[in-house]
Amino acid sequence: MSGDESLIDELLAGEHRALARVITKIENRSPGHRELVSRLHDHTGRAQVVGITGSPGAGKSTLVDKMAATYRERGETVGVIAIDPSSPYTGGAVLGDRIRMASNVGDMDVFFRSMSARGSLGGLSTSTTDAVKALDAFGKDRIIVETVGAGQNEVDIVRMADTVAVLVPPGSGDDVQMLKAGILEIADVFVVNKADLDGADRTVKELREMVHMRDASPMAGHHGAGPSGIDDGEDGDEERQPPIVETVAKTGEGVDELLAVLADHAEWLEATGERDARARQRYADEIRTLLRADSAALVEEELEARGGLEEYVDAVVARETDPYSVADEILAPVAEAVRERREAREN
Amino acid sequence: MSGDESLIDELLAGEHRALARVITKIENRSPGHRELVSRLHDHTGRAQVVGITGSPGAGKSTLVDKMAATYRERGETVGVIAIDPSSPYTGGAVLGDRIRMASNVGDMDVFFRSMSARGSLGGLSTSTTDAVKALDAFGKDRIIVETVGAGQNEVDIVRMADTVAVLVPPGSGDDVQMLKAGILEIADVFVVNKADLDGADRTVKELREMVHMRDASPMAGHHGAGPSGIDDGEDGDEERQPPIVETVAKTGEGVDELLAVLADHAEWLEATGERDARARQRYADEIRTLLRADSAALVEEELEARGGLEEYVDAVVARETDPYSVADEILAPVAEAVRERREAREN
Repeated sequence: MSGDESLIDELLAGEHRALARVITKIENRSPGHRELVSRLHDHTGRAQVVGITGSPGAGKSTLVDKMAATYRERGETVGVIAIDPSSPYTGGAVLGDRIRMASNVGDMDVFFRSMSARGSLGGLSTSTTDAVKALDAFGKDRIIVETVGAGQNEVDIVRMADTVAVLVPPGSGDDVQMLKAGILEIADVFVVNKADLDGADRTVKELREMVHMRDASPMAGHHGAGPSGIDDGEDGDEERQPPIVETVAKTGEGVDELLAVLADHAEWLEATGERDARARQRYADEIRTLLRADSAALVEEELEARGGLEEYVDAVVARETDPYSVADEILAPVAEAVRERREAREN
Repeated sequence: MSGDESLIDELLAGEHRALARVITKIENRSPGHRELVSRLHDHTGRAQVVGITGSPGAGKSTLVDKMAATYRERGETVGVIAIDPSSPYTGGAVLGDRIRMASNVGDMDVFFRSMSARGSLGGLSTSTTDAVKALDAFGKDRIIVETVGAGQNEVDIVRMADTVAVLVPPGSGDDVQMLKAGILEIADVFVVNKADLDGADRTVKELREMVHMRDASPMAGHHGAGPSGIDDGEDGDEERQPPIVETVAKTGEGVDELLAVLADHAEWLEATGERDARARQRYADEIRTLLRADSAALVEEELEARGGLEEYVDAVVARETDPYSVADEILAPVAEAVRERREAREN
């Protein structure tokens, strides 16, 4: 424990090696990682966290590298976490390459780290949240969470950011259609990257139409319509059409504009109280996710103590019992214990 | 409870109205549904359960209707459950249409039912498993579980079948590529429907290549290679290349052949012991899923008893505590109670 104490002190003192070790402990869910993250929480809340998602080939990593370099030129510190939910391997090679690239900027203040689905996907989402806390507590001004793909798992991970940018490759009419399923709702900003390619204008036009359609739809927004189904318009300020930015990551074109749009969004979050609302939602999600994972672990432990699942499966196959009865048998005593304790506490 | 007792008696006596009411209770997770399914379990295990998935437009529902009608002509009874994980609505209209269609066969022994994602998706998977048990206990010879799309959620649901058929529309080179992600592993049979269309031959050829590639790959099979990475070939009998069947659902062409292939697969499952192995895996999954859902509900109850999540979120925002500490605070007493009971039980 004292080793972890000094690790935290070193991280808070700005030592990148300590930051790297903390994130490794977080990724591996090593003993003590919970206490580490608990201790770091008090130092978080200052960084701007940007999530970047989009289908493979949209040019995410090139754009993120350019964004990081531009922040650095302005004297801001940057942390990048690249997430690959589909891979059980950590991207050691990718990580190496990109750290080298970052070093070209002349310092270590662009901290790159890739994380993958070692354990469960739920675990990856929690690990990412925890790693962002480490970067935030370290004092990074800007944190970018970048996903490899744009599937549901990626969406779940990236939505923990303050601002979510969705990258769309040009000339991808089909892709814009596919975006409708899930990704449209989370986009605070759309980026049409490779905007020098044919079809970029059409993609921008299609995105614009889609954004307008969303706003015109009766399903739009969380604050909009009352029970009458009529939007009184009074809370219209809280709705915000995602801006569409064109970039050419390879040349750096449009990157300044993108950073300006992201800064605007951060200001809007602050001014409307939306930043706080999102933080609250995030903390509620974090607590719920931990409670579920922890209680699942507790149940697993109880199952092991009872000799494992196999005997129960034998009995179910033999029609001596059934899955519901097994679940009741294992959990009824737990539920009873919880209720007894609750009553004792309340009296 | 006595109402549910007579409901079960009526179901076991072959009353379709009782079957429909039981499935409605299962779908709505109505009070008493657990006891109902518990009671039914003893009567299950005889039906052949076929899962059918594939991208929208592959012609699934037409094919399923033809399969059901053909089974009926042979004097076998049939239950069909159509699953739409993406929709929060039950397909009342679709249901109505298809029941009418079934009635054309001249009896009610093709029992159609559509189910959707009313609650959580995990819940839909459990509801589907439970509804299949109701049809099995009722005495249906053949049960078909049909999904609307072919996403991960559909894959999770359809894999509870004994035999999984994956429909592929012709001329869809891209679709065959996309199948590689997740669906290839679960396919026991491939069906190229609309086989009268251009491109069907190419699709069959591509599927054949893909199936061969899978078998040649060192990743193939669950039983294959030992720690040396060399497959000794001794357990090759357990591996089975998914056959590829061509159908034209609209005319009924190829449906007899498909049913023969499905019957072959059922025989193979039985002969190799794979049917039992799959059932065991399924029961283990069922128990784990129920334990997780039930313990999550228990945690939610405890959270409510403590005044809900909001106060905790306030404290996390104020940096007085953090999500890990909150989870520990709520679950530590539960874990302690569980361990005390375990020790008392063991002494």
